[in-house]
Amino acid sequence: MSTFSMEKHQLTGRSLIAGETAAGHGETFFGFNPVDGRALEQEFFSASIEDVDCAVNAALEAFAALAESTGKERSALLRSIAAAIEAAAPQLAEQAHLETALPRTPRLAGEIARTTGQLRLFAAMVEEGSWVQAHIDTADANRTPPRPDLRSMLRPLGPVAVFGASNFPFAFSVAGGDTASALAAGNPVIVKAHPAHPGTSELVGRIVSDAVKASGFPAGVFSLLFDRGHQVGAALVQHPGVRAVGFTGSLRGGRALMDLAAQRHEPIPVYAEMGSTNPVFILPGALQQRGEDLAASLHGSFTLAGGQQCTKPGVIFAPTASADGFVDKLRTATRGDAAFSLLTAGIAHAYKRAIAGRSELLTAEGAPAQDSADGHWASPGLFETTSDHFFANADLGEEVFGPATLLVHCSGIEEMLRAAHSLEGHLTATVIGTDDDLMQNKQLLRVLETKAGRLICNGVPTGVDVCDAMIHGGPYPATSDGRSTSVGNQAIYRFTRPVAYQNWPQAVLPPELQDVNPLGITRLWNGKLIPAPTS
Amino acid sequence: MSTFSMEKHQLTGRSLIAGETAAGHGETFFGFNPVDGRALEQEFFSASIEDVDCAVNAALEAFAALAESTGKERSALLRSIAAAIEAAAPQLAEQAHLETALPRTPRLAGEIARTTGQLRLFAAMVEEGSWVQAHIDTADANRTPPRPDLRSMLRPLGPVAVFGASNFPFAFSVAGGDTASALAAGNPVIVKAHPAHPGTSELVGRIVSDAVKASGFPAGVFSLLFDRGHQVGAALVQHPGVRAVGFTGSLRGGRALMDLAAQRHEPIPVYAEMGSTNPVFILPGALQQRGEDLAASLHGSFTLAGGQQCTKPGVIFAPTASADGFVDKLRTATRGDAAFSLLTAGIAHAYKRAIAGRSELLTAEGAPAQDSADGHWASPGLFETTSDHFFANADLGEEVFGPATLLVHCSGIEEMLRAAHSLEGHLTATVIGTDDDLMQNKQLLRVLETKAGRLICNGVPTGVDVCDAMIHGGPYPATSDGRSTSVGNQAIYRFTRPVAYQNWPQAVLPPELQDVNPLGITRLWNGKLIPAPTS
Repeated sequence: MSTFSMEKHQLTGRSLIAGETAAGHGETFFGFNPVDGRALEQEFFSASIEDVDCAVNAALEAFAALAESTGKERSALLRSIAAAIEAAAPQLAEQAHLETALPRTPRLAGEIARTTGQLRLFAAMVEEGSWVQAHIDTADANRTPPRPDLRSMLRPLGPVAVFGASNFPFAFSVAGGDTASALAAGNPVIVKAHPAHPGTSELVGRIVSDAVKASGFPAGVFSLLFDRGHQVGAALVQHPGVRAVGFTGSLRGGRALMDLAAQRHEPIPVYAEMGSTNPVFILPGALQQRGEDLAASLHGSFTLAGGQQCTKPGVIFAPTASADGFVDKLRTATRGDAAFSLLTAGIAHAYKRAIAGRSELLTAEGAPAQDSADGHWASPGLFETTSDHFFANADLGEEVFGPATLLVHCSGIEEMLRAAHSLEGHLTATVIGTDDDLMQNKQLLRVLETKAGRLICNGVPTGVDVCDAMIHGGPYPATSDGRSTSVGNQAIYRFTRPVAYQNWPQAVLPPELQDVNPLGITRLWNGKLIPAPTS
Repeated sequence: MSTFSMEKHQLTGRSLIAGETAAGHGETFFGFNPVDGRALEQEFFSASIEDVDCAVNAALEAFAALAESTGKERSALLRSIAAAIEAAAPQLAEQAHLETALPRTPRLAGEIARTTGQLRLFAAMVEEGSWVQAHIDTADANRTPPRPDLRSMLRPLGPVAVFGASNFPFAFSVAGGDTASALAAGNPVIVKAHPAHPGTSELVGRIVSDAVKASGFPAGVFSLLFDRGHQVGAALVQHPGVRAVGFTGSLRGGRALMDLAAQRHEPIPVYAEMGSTNPVFILPGALQQRGEDLAASLHGSFTLAGGQQCTKPGVIFAPTASADGFVDKLRTATRGDAAFSLLTAGIAHAYKRAIAGRSELLTAEGAPAQDSADGHWASPGLFETTSDHFFANADLGEEVFGPATLLVHCSGIEEMLRAAHSLEGHLTATVIGTDDDLMQNKQLLRVLETKAGRLICNGVPTGVDVCDAMIHGGPYPATSDGRSTSVGNQAIYRFTRPVAYQNWPQAVLPPELQDVNPLGITRLWNGKLIPAPTS
């Protein structure tokens, strides 16, 4: 049975600062049910600037203990968070469903499983220990000049501010990938809850906070702050004690944080995942062979979760001159759609404005959206245009967050290649083709390599696996930093820096760098890679 | 005999844009001989904004060919540059000596050897190929949800702007570590020559340019731009085609470039190494046991190359109450020094102003500096103060570039720990102690780990080995980005980004990611590290 007590975890609406419930001084706010647009019962209290200061100072005090803890100790903390989330899964899914209208199953249950999976993935990484990238070059007195003993490994950065996303109330929120990877590397975390799911945030926040307490780590390892507006987030990013930022959200929001971080006395890294139109390129052979199937799978992908996925295919380039089956199927599938409830009034409003702004290109629309006064409903939409019109209207390349996509009719591969060259950065780019198509259009792949973090062949961009090889990143404006990924094992490296130790006695070196390799990790020893004995 | 023809490589004073000698439209300038302060014969022509545009556009055009080249092809280019530098070493050292007054041997000869060593180190890395960090997760149709085939590796960023440093005319200049690592990873390079050694820059630039031509790569792979002022550098950092920046120089200069890069439509990474005071902490046992020896080695370190090293020990914390031998030796050694010629009039002027600003703390001074009208001469200086005075005067923590250091008399370890806590970021921090000292003061090491990129035990910070484990970096303001190193193998990662390939046919994948591993590199295969067969 669940060890998670409903009594203990009733909502309070209060921020959690280093294990203590904060009074909250600012404006209050409510979660909303997207289905009927009505405010939920629990009132939430915005944190104050003083609360931010308390949380960051507690994080700074906790940093040394967390940074010096063993991988096994941090692993135990992450596993206990995962276990407690699993135990509370029914209540968590219920609360998130109330606040987001995302289906309890498979979506929210699946997202909770992904979230606990991520926590355990990073737990396993730091338990095993090789992730620190130990480099050891032993002394050589006979070389000219003599070589000193030099050893380096990754160390944590310090307190990390994490901004929860609206569209993934678990996997990119309070105990999501940013928090899991930052904690795993040894960084205290201060989460700014997304106001679209404050109740879910509080429940998960209390789980993390309780787990920190039970683990024996200082309580400052984790804090959760509520805010109706942007003041708390801005103060966090500007606080001298904060050393890095993780964010998932809009380009406007992410860029604002990037600018604040760059203007600090000491600029800090901001890892902002800011969305993308995830262009899809359909090559002629595949379009002829299986146009209708492609239309069906792309339709499923662009309407998944109401089109509120970072990886939604928002623009499709195809040589459609003799592909009526594909085009017709895309239109009829869209017309057959029911309306979706979107996550927030703001998202629904922006979506409807974008639809209205492109109304002359709208060729198919799903069932009419219900009146917005009664909820955040929106109707799926298909836009179509020519490549000439696309090239002449730069705003058509912008992301429309919601269940819409844009089909760009191209005359042939030259126009598609031109479109690829014209792209800014994206999280993903997809190429659909027969083997012949692909071999004849390697140039397209080469161009797309410079534009996206993940290149999909004969699939859809939605669905982001959490594994070693996953890159959920991409050049600006898809993210603030195309050199990183926010999903998968490699996300841990965002919150680290390398430190070299020169000529230190064995007894003072971190165990990862001692000759005897007490942790049994993989190391680079005098240029030779020595895999972990256990691997 | 040398294959480097003196006739061919006579100075022209002109920028080199994609293999072509540029006219140059801006203000002209001259190199100076630091010994007598007189302008050298060759006139140099500042590049124009149009020249910047030409160089970047040529780099963009060359990018695809360089990015798609094999590691062996880029390795051959780097090795041919190294060989040509070696062949021209006598002329290069002579020119650099004229412009910097650094001794031909061992200093300039050694720096040339380091520079060719760096080129060959990165050549060996990309020839071997494992540096791309290939991650392969094969498909698993039976998993829920089914796992796609996902493979990732590092790819180059695009054109990189490199700013040469004044104090290392070879190793941190035209064909220095930034250029070598950027080219190795597959990025075209545009160097902004440092105006303190324009002739050396031109000679090395022509070597690189000729090597690019001979290699068959597009000429846009490399350009070299001269500028008397800051216009060309600013235009480079602001050019939309430039994707990253490498810089070694002052905090003011580096921060200006960071700010320009952050304000772009598409912000780009700036790797600026901006100097440091490299604090030294002497623990009581060592101070008692071998105070005079420590004074001698620290004196040698802070006056090395006229104190114009990024890693010069600029502040020394020690419990000196009963360490007269140490203090006396430091003073007498400084008093016994001859004057040094500094690299430029600007450096000499700033040094003398800093000395004058701290004159009440000056306890020892070397031979009088010659009149500045006849050269950029400066006299070594030792400052001393109490820890109380140090804590009360933040400006005492700032770098003085030149042959001076500051000894801070501490009453004991508590004050030294407080000093450690008060530090901003540094390239290095040094702890000197007996084994007992070190075991009793692990806390000091833990604090310094958060403040510096390299921690030295019982040595001096000057001397930066080029190897796998070297970290020449550190938190701001030592560098713009404490997550990186500008020296050693790991410097290559600065100019890369990861790209994932999902479900691609083998024939279209890069060879690094193909099942059969045609390059024989180390890879992570379904979570298991498989070392290169040849390693």
